[in-house]
Parts: sequence; structure tokens; C-alpha cells
Amino acid sequence: MNPQMRFTLEAQDPHCAARAGRISLPHGEIETPVFMAVGTQGSVKALSQEDLVALDAPIILGNAYHLYLRPGTETLEAAGGLHQFMAWDRPILTDSGGFQVFSLDGLTKVTPDGVQFQSHIDGSRHFFSPEKAIDVQHSIGSDIMMCFDECTSYPATREHAEKSMRMTHAWAARCKAQWESLGAEHQALFGIVQGSTYEDLRQESARTLADLDFPGYAIGGVSVGESKDEMRRAVEWAAPLLPEHKPRYLMGVGPPEDFLDAIERGIDMFDCVMPTRNARNGSLFTTRGKVNIKNARYARDFEPLEPAWPNPVGGHYTKAYLHHLYRCGEILSLRLNTLHNVFFMLQLAVHSREAIRNGAFPDFKRAFLEAYTSGE
Amino acid sequence: MNPQMRFTLEAQDPHCAARAGRISLPHGEIETPVFMAVGTQGSVKALSQEDLVALDAPIILGNAYHLYLRPGTETLEAAGGLHQFMAWDRPILTDSGGFQVFSLDGLTKVTPDGVQFQSHIDGSRHFFSPEKAIDVQHSIGSDIMMCFDECTSYPATREHAEKSMRMTHAWAARCKAQWESLGAEHQALFGIVQGSTYEDLRQESARTLADLDFPGYAIGGVSVGESKDEMRRAVEWAAPLLPEHKPRYLMGVGPPEDFLDAIERGIDMFDCVMPTRNARNGSLFTTRGKVNIKNARYARDFEPLEPAWPNPVGGHYTKAYLHHLYRCGEILSLRLNTLHNVFFMLQLAVHSREAIRNGAFPDFKRAFLEAYTSGE
Repeated sequence: MNPQMRFTLEAQDPHCAARAGRISLPHGEIETPVFMAVGTQGSVKALSQEDLVALDAPIILGNAYHLYLRPGTETLEAAGGLHQFMAWDRPILTDSGGFQVFSLDGLTKVTPDGVQFQSHIDGSRHFFSPEKAIDVQHSIGSDIMMCFDECTSYPATREHAEKSMRMTHAWAARCKAQWESLGAEHQALFGIVQGSTYEDLRQESARTLADLDFPGYAIGGVSVGESKDEMRRAVEWAAPLLPEHKPRYLMGVGPPEDFLDAIERGIDMFDCVMPTRNARNGSLFTTRGKVNIKNARYARDFEPLEPAWPNPVGGHYTKAYLHHLYRCGEILSLRLNTLHNVFFMLQLAVHSREAIRNGAFPDFKRAFLEAYTSGE
Repeated sequence: MNPQMRFTLEAQDPHCAARAGRISLPHGEIETPVFMAVGTQGSVKALSQEDLVALDAPIILGNAYHLYLRPGTETLEAAGGLHQFMAWDRPILTDSGGFQVFSLDGLTKVTPDGVQFQSHIDGSRHFFSPEKAIDVQHSIGSDIMMCFDECTSYPATREHAEKSMRMTHAWAARCKAQWESLGAEHQALFGIVQGSTYEDLRQESARTLADLDFPGYAIGGVSVGESKDEMRRAVEWAAPLLPEHKPRYLMGVGPPEDFLDAIERGIDMFDCVMPTRNARNGSLFTTRGKVNIKNARYARDFEPLEPAWPNPVGGHYTKAYLHHLYRCGEILSLRLNTLHNVFFMLQLAVHSREAIRNGAFPDFKRAFLEAYTSGE
């Protein structure tokens, strides 16, 4: 197998593990560090594909579990893949569905072979094996597929964490074999490090997956309820053991402060629903801190929300208008707020990259957090 | 008073009363016939102001009742008017709020002086007189204000219809006096014809309002439950008695067939929530008839919805994708469907105007309806 994905390390900050790189994929190039907006069902909630291009989002996420249920792999194949189906010609990364399948409380039955589960939509019964998860992602045609893993819940006993990690490792090998048997060179496959909060397990997991030689690696089992310190340690234990010249993706992270913490520790890729979900609840990121737009103090604030990083699509609307839309439950509120938060995360990645290239990431991080924690 | 609004009659179809014109207003020119999208609370539901410009919507509606309650006239005045508040620099027409106030079942008390009502939001008590309705619209700063009228409910006894009409006439005179006392030359004021389903009342109302010499006239009390025949007759009775060189606006109308019927009878301006409301329910207008996008037949229909009038914002998305978004309850579904239906109505107006200028409106109408009734 000779995957088409290429990762180039372009800069390394001399003061920390932060790095800047470039991932070349069949549907385009991505500069890292990168924030990937989440489009679970083939749509980043409240945004259009044109919005995402206008914000210069270089890559989005899809989810194999959701897309398998709706619209289904037959429809996706008939359309020519998810890119065609949703009219998005930039890269897509798909999560394998493991996280979702294991989250279906009480409806799942896990065996070493795979997971039997019931649809959250209609209760219908389905089965995902590692091979099936790769087949589904192959039908989707994502540029980057993820291995089918067990996202170890938190907290986990050492015994459970170890057992769960070993299954993830066995499944990673099966995912890789299935990917190779499909000959899907246009799709890269990333392995996922587990090991919960245990140093030796995280290290063993990173080494085991590195030995399997994936095009890229993710650190999973974070952002599941653990403390910020525990998350930082999980990254610190695993990242240095992952191959330097392969991209590293921290799954499900996170708010700006966690994003910067992880970049500092050598992470290249991020996804998180928080920017989009918070937006819909009126909670907005700004360089001067979080803004809760429903707050009455904004009712007659006729200034734009973020003069420092003006959003090219809706950045000219005033806080008073955003407040009014939120208060009235207008649909436009969902879109303008989401545009804002997604652009904010994209800009945070762009500025982080610039700082790394200037060898000044720690200074950038310090200055950003100082202003960010001074707000509302 | 020397209102800044100018209406120019540009063409008259020789086969019917259909006419093409141009309304010049402080915030821009409008070619008629025109469809005005409804932005009740300072937002056309699911669309941004940039969307409306991309669709080339020349004018939108606001509602004095809703805007008075939220954000309130003090905020609107502090912002410099609704145009500034919502960042929309094209014309705005405001409904006076009469229709809404009279719809607040059981919460209203009507006297010749005005209407006492309770907010549908928090139950707070308020009072709208004709003067107050003009003051509110003056704070809003709309290009066209509407008189405060009683929209006679349907069915109405002759006695009730007559009494209600006389109050509307008295209020029209008071609205005009208040408008003049404000010296609001940058805002035009339209009178509203009532008279329910009674020929002599409709005629008396048209004559009375014409004598009051408004810059423009609306026909109200339609689209309230009456038959299509009754609506057509209301227009036929009133329109010929309204001054030829003033614009005529049919309030709250309507679906494509009613829109064309009214143009044929000499109407220039239309507003209707149906295109936006139906869109949110998955009911879409096309030149080949209505499409119910939730229908399973569209699950693998990879053609665009409307090849004849392709929507410049979302017209490239396939029916299969629109179906998927609707089925999954994605927010983008609301926007793409609304973009489609609003653009459809705008195009219907554009093509109607072109047909009138070519002296071929009845042919255009016949051909359109033949295709439109052939669909799903």
C-alpha cells in the first residue's frame, strides 16, 4: 500500500513540542495545526458548504455511524461518495463510529469480533466489526478514515483500561488489514491510542500503534470527563512516542485553552463539537474572553463581536442584533453564532501556526490566554 | 408633505389589468410586480441579509407589533433605525401591527381610540392607537409604513364588516395626520382597503381611501380563510377604484397561483409567509409543481431541485441531499429550503414583469400554471 496522503513537517518551535506542518490529501492541502469542524451527518450544524469555504475551513469531519444509518452506504455509493453527496470538495475525515456505538447505553453487545447495537433512530439492530467500520468509511470515501476502537470510558480501573486497550490494538490491526485488502490508497487510515489515565498503558498503546505503521495517529479516550491535567498528561505520555513525521490528532478537543495546551505538546489536528454546540446556546468565543450573547448587557451594544478576528461572513453584525436574534429564537442566530465560533477556532489555529513558524508559540499562547481570561 | 417615494408605471399589459412599474424609495428602487419576503422580527426566518442580497430580494417586511415588543423602539432608535440595527440597506416595509394585535385571541380590548392588548411573550399590557402605530413605524424608519387598520375576520356579517371598515377609515385619517405631523417625508404611508366580501363596502373603502390621497394603497382582509373566488372578487372590486399612478399591495398573498391571479387584476406588491413557512416544512415550489422533499422518492434523486430557475445560493444541492437534511432535522435544511422558495417567488415576479413588458402576461400565466400543475 502506498497511501496518497503526505505529511510534511515545516517548522518546530524551539521552546516546546509545538510544530507546524502540511497534510496533502486527494481533496486538498491542510496546514497544521488545524481545527476540523464537525459535520456528523454530512452537515456542519447551521452552516452551508459555501459558509465553510468562506471561513476557509480546510477539512471537516463526518461520522461513520450516523452516515451508515442515514443516508446509508448504498445512497452514498450511488452518489459517488460523501463529497459528491454533500457537494464539498475539500478533505473529509471520518470517525469510525466507535465512540457513538459504545455510547448507546444499554443497547450494545461487545465481543472480540465487534459490536452489536441498536439504532438510536428506530431501534433497528446492526453490527459493526473493525472490517465493517472500514467498509463503511470506504463507501463514504473520506480522505482520512479512523480505526474502529473502544473509547475507554472515564474513570476506568487499570484492569478495564488494559483489556479495552488490547481490544483496540487487535482491532487496529484488523482495520489496517481491511484497508489494505480494499487497496484504498486514496484514503489514509489513522490508528487511535488508548490507555486511559495510565502512563504505561498510554506508552504501550503509542508504541504498539507506531509499530503497525499507520499514515497518522490519534490520541483517543480524552475529553470524556477527565481533568485538564489528566488530559495534558495523556498527551505528554503518548505524543513523544508517535512517529515525528506523521500527523497527530487529539480527538474531541477542545476549548481554546485545551487546544493551545495540546499544540504545545506536539498535536497537529483537532475536532470538537463545543464551538458549534456552544454557538447554538449563545456562548461565543472572543479574543477578550467568552461572551454569553443572551446577557442583557448586549441589548444596546452596537459594536461587532470580534473586531480582532472579523468573521468574513457575519462579522459585521452587532452584538445588539445577535442578542435580539438569540432572544427571539431566530434561526439566523444559530448560523451567525456558529459562523463566529468556527471562524474563531480556525483563526486560533492560523495564528498558532504563524507563532510556531516564528518560534514564538509560548509567547503567543501566553498573550492569547491573558486577553482571553480578562473578558466577561 | 412631499413624500420621497416615487412610483412610475412602466408598462400595461393590453390583455388584462397587469402592469409593470418602479417604486423609488430612500433605500433603493423596486421593480414591480414584487414579492416581499417577511422578516417579522428583523430577520427573514433562516436567511441572512447577505442571502437576501444574493437572491436579489429588493425589499423585505418588518412588523411593528413584534419590533415594538422586541427589541423595542428605544433600542431601534439608539441603533439609528431598523436598517442599521439589522444591517440591511435596501427598502423595508412595515406592517402596522394591526393584524397581530387583533389576532391576540381574548387578550384585546378595542375602542374607537385604539387597541389595548397583552404581549404574547410575557403578558405585559400595551396600547396601540393609530398615532402610536405610526410613531412605532417612525422609530423603525421603514421606507413604507402601513396604516393601523382592523383586518376584518372571515366570515363577517355585513353589519360587522361595515362597522369595522368605518373604524379603519377613521383610523386611516388619524394615521395620515400623525404621519404629516411627524413630517416623515422619507417614509411613505399606505392606506388599507377593507370591506370583507361585500362589493359595495370594498368599493366604498377604495374610494374613501383614494380621497385621503395616500402615496400607495393596500388591499387587506384577504387571505384570512375566504375562497380563492372571494379573494379574486375583493381585488376586482377595489383595484380599479384605486389611483392608477399609485402602487397597489395585496396583503398576505400568496401561493404562486394567487400571486398570478392578482397581478392579472392590477396588483403590484405582495408579501406572504407561505414561501418561508412551507420551506421549513419541506414543501417547495418548483416550475414543475410542488415538491415535498421529505418524500422517499427523493432519497436517491441526485438532480438539483429547480434547473429552470437555479437559486444562486444553494441551487446546486441535489434533491437527495435536501431530503437527507430534512430527514435528519439539520438546521441547514431550513435555510436551503427557504432560499429556494424565496428565490422562486422573486423569479416568479421577475418573469411576470418581463411578460407584462412584452404584453404577454396571460400567455405566461397559462404556460406557468400548466407546468406548475403537472408536478408531484
